[in-house]
Amino acid sequence: MQMIHRFIFSHALTGFTLSVMRLTSTALLFLLIILSCNSLALKPQLLGRDTVQTYPHHTSVSYKTFYFDQQIDHFGFLENGTFKQRYLLNDQHWHKEGGPILFYTGNEGDISWFCNNTGFMWDVAEELGAMLVFAEHRYYGESMPFGKESYSNTKYLNYLTSEQALADFAVLIKALKTTLPGAQKSSVIAIGGSYGGMLAAWLRMKYPSAVVGALAASAPIWQFIVPCGEFYKVVTHDFTISGTNCSSNIRRSWAAIDRVSASGEGLQWLSQEFGLCSSLKTPDEVYGFKAWLQETWVNLAMVDYPYEANFLQPLPAWPVKVVCKNLHFDTGVSDKQLLNGISHAVKVYYNYTGDAVCLNTSQTATGNLGLLGWYYQSCTEMVMPMCTDGIIDMFEPQPWNFQAFSDECYNQFGVRPREDWAEIVYGGRNISAHSNIIFSNGNLDPWMSGGVTTSLSESLVAIMIDGGAHHLDLRYSNEFDPESVIKTRALEVRYFKQWLNQAATTQ
Amino acid sequence: MQMIHRFIFSHALTGFTLSVMRLTSTALLFLLIILSCNSLALKPQLLGRDTVQTYPHHTSVSYKTFYFDQQIDHFGFLENGTFKQRYLLNDQHWHKEGGPILFYTGNEGDISWFCNNTGFMWDVAEELGAMLVFAEHRYYGESMPFGKESYSNTKYLNYLTSEQALADFAVLIKALKTTLPGAQKSSVIAIGGSYGGMLAAWLRMKYPSAVVGALAASAPIWQFIVPCGEFYKVVTHDFTISGTNCSSNIRRSWAAIDRVSASGEGLQWLSQEFGLCSSLKTPDEVYGFKAWLQETWVNLAMVDYPYEANFLQPLPAWPVKVVCKNLHFDTGVSDKQLLNGISHAVKVYYNYTGDAVCLNTSQTATGNLGLLGWYYQSCTEMVMPMCTDGIIDMFEPQPWNFQAFSDECYNQFGVRPREDWAEIVYGGRNISAHSNIIFSNGNLDPWMSGGVTTSLSESLVAIMIDGGAHHLDLRYSNEFDPESVIKTRALEVRYFKQWLNQAATTQ
Repeated sequence: MQMIHRFIFSHALTGFTLSVMRLTSTALLFLLIILSCNSLALKPQLLGRDTVQTYPHHTSVSYKTFYFDQQIDHFGFLENGTFKQRYLLNDQHWHKEGGPILFYTGNEGDISWFCNNTGFMWDVAEELGAMLVFAEHRYYGESMPFGKESYSNTKYLNYLTSEQALADFAVLIKALKTTLPGAQKSSVIAIGGSYGGMLAAWLRMKYPSAVVGALAASAPIWQFIVPCGEFYKVVTHDFTISGTNCSSNIRRSWAAIDRVSASGEGLQWLSQEFGLCSSLKTPDEVYGFKAWLQETWVNLAMVDYPYEANFLQPLPAWPVKVVCKNLHFDTGVSDKQLLNGISHAVKVYYNYTGDAVCLNTSQTATGNLGLLGWYYQSCTEMVMPMCTDGIIDMFEPQPWNFQAFSDECYNQFGVRPREDWAEIVYGGRNISAHSNIIFSNGNLDPWMSGGVTTSLSESLVAIMIDGGAHHLDLRYSNEFDPESVIKTRALEVRYFKQWLNQAATTQ
Repeated sequence: MQMIHRFIFSHALTGFTLSVMRLTSTALLFLLIILSCNSLALKPQLLGRDTVQTYPHHTSVSYKTFYFDQQIDHFGFLENGTFKQRYLLNDQHWHKEGGPILFYTGNEGDISWFCNNTGFMWDVAEELGAMLVFAEHRYYGESMPFGKESYSNTKYLNYLTSEQALADFAVLIKALKTTLPGAQKSSVIAIGGSYGGMLAAWLRMKYPSAVVGALAASAPIWQFIVPCGEFYKVVTHDFTISGTNCSSNIRRSWAAIDRVSASGEGLQWLSQEFGLCSSLKTPDEVYGFKAWLQETWVNLAMVDYPYEANFLQPLPAWPVKVVCKNLHFDTGVSDKQLLNGISHAVKVYYNYTGDAVCLNTSQTATGNLGLLGWYYQSCTEMVMPMCTDGIIDMFEPQPWNFQAFSDECYNQFGVRPREDWAEIVYGGRNISAHSNIIFSNGNLDPWMSGGVTTSLSESLVAIMIDGGAHHLDLRYSNEFDPESVIKTRALEVRYFKQWLNQAATTQ
């Protein structure tokens, strides 16, 4: 999360308009939950070396790391080079000669991190007799088409698209089924969360010969076309239901910040009150501070899990409720009282452990290229309009401005986003011709605003997880799991078995 | 046809191995039937000008010509240029506000020629209240991504792929539905023949949101994966059933040619007997002469229509039968007697009108780039293995040699074909997840060897046209049409109506 913020900040310094920056930051939040966690990732494994990672209360996770020679460009023949696509494989529970392959369609980050954070696949492998494969998305982790130069210029970035990534997956699946002894008859099920969930759904849509079905968890495949205010509406709703006056106090906080920060004394007070590592001095910094707060609320909504967890940050169970305990004020409260509450609320997110010395609103970069990668993707085909109006949501009004966004992209990369392409290539709302896809969404997750939340046919099934945040169903089972996610996982496995049976009878 | 032959010949002169050349020529035959007819095409129309073409016994064909700004590269963002994609439109019978759009997915040639040779669409427009649209395939006709430079180097050719063409169609359809008043609710049906039929099927597979169904006429979508000898087996079968000893005499002709051409006198006799414009002198020329004969037999099988027609050449009804009347010999016949029969047979194809002064086995180039375009496509993703063994077919044995083909492609274009890509991207035989596609094939058409000839599901329907040659069903109705094609067209229209009803009820 902080990386994003820094990114925005660096843009502010190079003169991008603030309004655009805010929108960009929102568009990038999708990445946030993934890439911020790259630091958690295991170190890359050498070919042939086993990796074993032990989690409390869970079976240890072990896999082998492989590299597959993948075409840099599947859709043109001038560039005929290849790169090493990383994938991780576990066949401990696999029933050879027919046991399925659960294939994680890697998203915008290090695949070992996804491998370790998709406990659901590890939990169900034995029951399904399944091989697990986690395939890394090109331009992330170790899978760099042009090595260290991959992000050095727009020419090299040209092959970073979802279509190329899907082709990578389809080609890899074909190769696995052809070359792995015993896998010829194995059906493949695609599984992914967030952008990885979109890829899982799209893999089934575009390459149904490769996968018999897909679990698309918290996959906002319609974020390109839903009204731009929907996302922040869900965020706001989470805070509204998590405590009296919670969202309305956050809504009022923006003006309070403006009033307090109007004076030098106020700026100093704000900086001290929030324990910022670097004091606020300029209006731009105040703007960045507000953007940082906004992203904090969004992140909290996404990771509002029912148990203590360490996904983006170490957090208590139901963190939004904990946050909202600090925001019960009635309307009579003073600006400073209100902001004192906000500061306590924010510290639930940034300092649950009590170890933080100060809060850093513009953290240093980690050098992780993934952030830039997703920014490039959102600047080309992954155009997700976002806006706020301060009425249906608790944020400051901010319209969606495609042209400004496009100009920013052009300045940054020399490319312009194509506003309609994602809808055309992936079908928009008209996807009923497809089959065997589960769209699971949590009703607390802001990304459900762009998700498929009602079933479209008998085999395009939507599952809403009551009390679920961002792809809760893909996490390891937990003793505090609500009944909804337990049932969801059971239903998902039932669909898997149904697809596998279907495939077995038609082969 | 002759253009192909010339092309092969020019290769022979630049030192390519003969075995590869023969195979290449075969792989190119698909193009043949299309591009050889470019000379028949109407002259390009200016925007806004109406074109009216009158056919005997048929309603006059009239359309308007438009040009759509299409992305040169749909799958990358570095190349952000656009080009003018040509499309032809007729809305004479269109029922606004809901009437369907029949959308011809143009193949490797001038779209006005397809427009004028797909009488079926014109015949059914009124019954369906349909708009007709014929969209040109990039790199053919007038739709040149880099203008006159489009074929000047491999860099410019890089965007000539079926995937880019499909994206063109999907984007154009979206634009038509968005911008044409009254078309918002119009369902679109894709129609195509030969490679255009493959594109129609693939458009439905890859972009089912764009088209509610597809008629893929004589579309060999499995030619990439069927045994390499199947194509020539069908050619041979056509000659076997069209006259006593017909195919066996053709099989024996190759050795007869070798024996006769072993002497200078024999070469001269052969040249005179066939009325060749240019006498045979070298073994390479004899090889080219045999390749030319082979292609002639293939073409005859493809256009073995039940009535006089002028598709590739002016021909009598059932031309293969007419050809075979010259090839009834028993085994006792002499080489020269046999070849005299062959010469008469060939002249049915090249001189039915009696106007030909001599037969030209290496005609001059017409400057038509389409030929080169298809050659490039077959050198990249459209890899259709072809072979002969002289046993199940009537040709000289010729194995499929992918490596030699690849080397030839590399020498010609600096690109190498990807042997497995078409199967991966278009699903190979595993396409049962798709829906609403009619695969029509004629049992006389060699391309049915790579076609879908048995239904795969209730909505993936195969129709075999008994006595049908290459996409007979797409031609204008004719008084000599066999019952089979009349029924086929009626069934096709019935499926169209079913898809339109389906779409209307789910909208």
